[in-house]
Amino acid sequence: MSLLHEDDVLARLAVVLEERKHADAGSSYVAKLYAKGLDAILKKVGEEATETVMAAKDGDAEHIVYEVADLWFHTLVLLAHQGLGPQAVLAELDRRFGLSGIAEKAARPHD
Amino acid sequence: MSLLHEDDVLARLAVVLEERKHADAGSSYVAKLYAKGLDAILKKVGEEATETVMAAKDGDAEHIVYEVADLWFHTLVLLAHQGLGPQAVLAELDRRFGLSGIAEKAARPHD
Amino acid sequence: MSLLHEDDVLARLAVVLEERKHADAGSSYVAKLYAKGLDAILKKVGEEATETVMAAKDGDAEHIVYEVADLWFHTLVLLAHQGLGPQAVLAELDRRFGLSGIAEKAARPHD
Amino acid sequence: MSLLHEDDVLARLAVVLEERKHADAGSSYVAKLYAKGLDAILKKVGEEATETVMAAKDGDAEHIVYEVADLWFHTLVLLAHQGLGPQAVLAELDRRFGLSGIAEKAARPHD
Repeated sequence: MSLLHEDDVLARLAVVLEERKHADAGSSYVAKLYAKGLDAILKKVGEEATETVMAAKDGDAEHIVYEVADLWFHTLVLLAHQGLGPQAVLAELDRRFGLSGIAEKAARPHD
Repeated sequence: MSLLHEDDVLARLAVVLEERKHADAGSSYVAKLYAKGLDAILKKVGEEATETVMAAKDGDAEHIVYEVADLWFHTLVLLAHQGLGPQAVLAELDRRFGLSGIAEKAARPHD
Repeated sequence: MSLLHEDDVLARLAVVLEERKHADAGSSYVAKLYAKGLDAILKKVGEEATETVMAAKDGDAEHIVYEVADLWFHTLVLLAHQGLGPQAVLAELDRRFGLSGIAEKAARPHD
Repeated sequence: MSLLHEDDVLARLAVVLEERKHADAGSSYVAKLYAKGLDAILKKVGEEATETVMAAKDGDAEHIVYEVADLWFHTLVLLAHQGLGPQAVLAELDRRFGLSGIAEKAARPHD
């Protein structure tokens, strides 16, 4: 995986998800999901979270990775649907854990 | 954010989460979560998914980003707890959407 | 349990939950939950659903019952918060499965 | 609704769900769900919890009742699948809130 840069994956996915916004509703899974609207996207987020929990209870590593990928994917669809992208989420994570050296505990004022 | 590379954020977080495994349970939020075990981590995954859904229903962009960050974060804790990491998830996403040009629909044999 | 009538339990709970609306926020768990508002109640619904899933994956009968009770309880709090009650839910279930003999499949036009 | 006794609804549903266990997988929605197994049932529990949250955020009373009914229904399917029934859940709720007069707060040793 030496040629795989993580940021390329998320950035590329964000570009793909942006493009699908203008595609015909029947042309792909994502285009169909956009056409169904926010509730359909959120339903998938909830569903994939549940499937992640089940895969983890099974202790099946491959399945966990698959379901977390599904969960991240549908949150990326949600972000795109809202005019947002992965950079904002990564910046938020960076802010909490970043170069500043602030303990992550302090950065989580609430649960 | 020109100096912020996404992969740095996720890779760095994975390193932090790995280190916390050996920390005292009282030393940080993550160390405490590890000590509580898998169910506590999964409970947070479910909780943050619900909070993401609520933030999206409110249409509050900043809140959505915050909750998706929380959700990704707790899935990273889950991955670390299972001896996995973000690279595997990104590789799975790359496999589905990658350079191969295979339509993402085809890459989703099931829902 | 010959003296325990199910409807008494749900109807009685609904009465208790209604009373707690007027109680001081610090006086009980439910009064505190009402004071926190809708999102806090919904967060609990999501959380208890996740815990039900985990208990079921463990195959622990006693724990399943405990978590389903927690889930039903928090949906009753939600109903009360919205000026609704268990009767409406039971009437909806009766409508789907009732004396009319209509197959439940037909009564579920969507998933 | 003067002739509708709540316990009849839940008890009747439990009987229906028990019967469906022996039905052909293609004969009804529930029989199909049993055939798919525990994970399919749990996926529905998670899904209906998410839909309940969304309906509540919309503040749509009719929709809330519909989704809570869906959620209770799928927890009843789960209970039946595990050889359990609504009586055990109602008994647990009764234990917490029952005739004993013990405050519900005290009856919830953990969250």
